[in-house]
Formats: sequence, C-alpha cells, structure tokens
Amino acid sequence: MLHLAAPTDERWAARAREHLPEILLDHAHCEKKAASTALSLIFRYPERPAMVVPLSRLAREELAHFEEVVAVMRARGLEFRRQTPSPYAAQLMAAARTHEPMRLLDTLLCCALIEARSCERMRLLAETLDDPGLVKLYRGLLACEARHFHSYVELARALELVPEAELSARLDALAAHEAAVLRGDPGEPRLHSAVAPALQ
Amino acid sequence: MLHLAAPTDERWAARAREHLPEILLDHAHCEKKAASTALSLIFRYPERPAMVVPLSRLAREELAHFEEVVAVMRARGLEFRRQTPSPYAAQLMAAARTHEPMRLLDTLLCCALIEARSCERMRLLAETLDDPGLVKLYRGLLACEARHFHSYVELARALELVPEAELSARLDALAAHEAAVLRGDPGEPRLHSAVAPALQ
Repeated sequence: MLHLAAPTDERWAARAREHLPEILLDHAHCEKKAASTALSLIFRYPERPAMVVPLSRLAREELAHFEEVVAVMRARGLEFRRQTPSPYAAQLMAAARTHEPMRLLDTLLCCALIEARSCERMRLLAETLDDPGLVKLYRGLLACEARHFHSYVELARALELVPEAELSARLDALAAHEAAVLRGDPGEPRLHSAVAPALQ
Repeated sequence: MLHLAAPTDERWAARAREHLPEILLDHAHCEKKAASTALSLIFRYPERPAMVVPLSRLAREELAHFEEVVAVMRARGLEFRRQTPSPYAAQLMAAARTHEPMRLLDTLLCCALIEARSCERMRLLAETLDDPGLVKLYRGLLACEARHFHSYVELARALELVPEAELSARLDALAAHEAAVLRGDPGEPRLHSAVAPALQ
C-alpha cells in the first residue's frame, strides 16, 4: 500500500532501540525538513495554485510534529541540537528529472516515498519500543505519515501530466531507487538509515 | 507600543483600496515569507533550543494566515500567483550586523518591526475598507501581528546578549532604518510599500 520496493530489515529497529536519543533527534530534524520542503514547493511553483493550500497544511502538520517530538525529547532530558543529516533525502531526490514539469512530478513522488518510509519505520518503532510514551508518539504519527504519502501522490496525480499507468510505473521506479539509496546508506543510526554497515 | 519610527501616510490606505487585488496577493506572499523566515531561523540556529518551539509555532500561525488570505482571495475570484516582491524586507534586513551573535539579535528585531508595520497597515485597512469580509480578516489578523511583534522582541530579549537599554536603543535605531526604507520604496501597491511616488 505504501509502494516501498523493499521492507526494512528488522535489525534496523533493534539498532534504533539502542540509539534512541539519536533517532529522536533525527526524527525532529526530519519533521522540520519535511515542513521546509513543503514550503519550498509553494515558493517554487506559485503558478500551480491547486497545490499551495494542501502544501501549506502539510507544512503546518509537520511543524506540529516537530514540536511534539521536541517535547518528547525534553521529557527525556534530551535537547534539540544540530545533527549531521543522513544523505538519504538528497540521494533520493537526485533521481528527479531536471526538466519541468517532470521535475515537479518526480519531486512530489519522492516526497511521497519519504513519507512512506517514515510510516514503515515508525510502525517498527511502535512495535519494538517498550516506553509507553514513545509507542503512543509513533502510533499517532505513523497514521499521519501514511496520509501524507497519499497526499503527495494525489498532488502528483492532480498535475495530470501523465496517464495513470505511467504515474504508477514512475512511482515503482523511484521506489526501487529509494530502496537502493537505503542499501548504500553509511548506516549512522537515523530514521532513514540502513542497518548498520557491520550488520549488512 | 509598536516601536515604529514613523506612521504610515494615510494616502497609502487610499491607494491600497484602489489596488486591492495586488494588496491581497502581496499579503498572501508576506504570510508565506514570514513562515519561511521563522523556519529558516530554526535551521540556522539549532544550538539555541529556547527559540525552536516559539519559532515553529510562529511559522504555523503564518501558514494558517496564508491559507486564510488565499481563501479570501478565491472568494473574490482572485488566485494566488507569482508577484514581484517589494524590496522592503531585504532592505530592512540589510541593516543587521554581520557578526554573530549580533546578527541574530538584529534579525529578530527586524522581524519584530516587519510584524509591527504589518499590524499598523492592517489596522488602516480595517478602518478604510468597506467590504465586511475584508474588515473582519484584517481586524482578526492585526491582533496576531501585534502579538508576533512582542514574540520576536521577547526572543531577542531572551538571548540576554545586551542590557535592556541597549536592546531598546537598537530597536529604535532599526525602527528609524525601517521608516527610511519605506520612504525610499519604489511605491508599487504592496502591504509594505511607500505611498505612490507621484503622491510623495
């Protein structure tokens, strides 16, 4: 349903559990980055008015999640701070075609896949962790991530640039790329990291 | 109370009234830009965790206003689109010192002044316009802009970089610069434009 080409190795969740402070910090950064990406699409494509309000709502929701994750961190004595980002999003987006309007189509589908992978990983965290507060956080958020996946696919579909079969094929191709990006990830403990290199 | 160094000439409101579609479009862009500025400060200063949640809330509120203005535009048969921005914000921000942490202090105070000027102008629009929907929009928003002014000043104060008298003197100096920027504005009909050049 989430169109991912490869499921996450269960060892990722075991490792995430051992590195919860880093995972939470990375998660906060991911929500902030997701808001920034949605907002940047409004700046980049003002001539597509059908997108602006859905993207603004998405950005607001990502910011609310950002605040939620920071609050959960603080309740655990952790503080938001700078973190080396994982190369995941940039490497995924690198597959977007460079000519418009296909650049926009691909960007929206890549955004959809990031949300899909977040959803899958948050489900794993909800199933793996013991802390009731974190289980509640991830159970709540994974439903939003699934909804965001569908919102981005719907925005791509509403562009009416390609027939449905071509849209679906492009999503499959980008999903295969997404899985390849994860396989090549350096393996820092991140929301969108691979299993640790030593375990691969 | 809003620390502005010069009040807006009442002819600005008369001109805005004649160019409502441009004013509404510019207003939508201003809300979007305000959200982007708040979000960019979270990216730029992650090592100042006391700012991140207030800035995220500010960004969410600006986005909600953006959506509100776009809805008001659409109800009037207008659509969001690209617009040449006024040079106001960039020229105001150019007065910020370039060395940290004073760059941050000045940026926050400039943000405060933009909110203050927005508040003043929205009050003029609420007093000048006849359309009950627009009067309601601007009466509602001007209170938020005043609150945002105080939020930004409070964020600057909470940095504890300078004594209160120096903070106040810096706000006065930047307010004088803000008024000078407006006097030199090319005069396109914008939320933060001067009176039209022909009228000056």
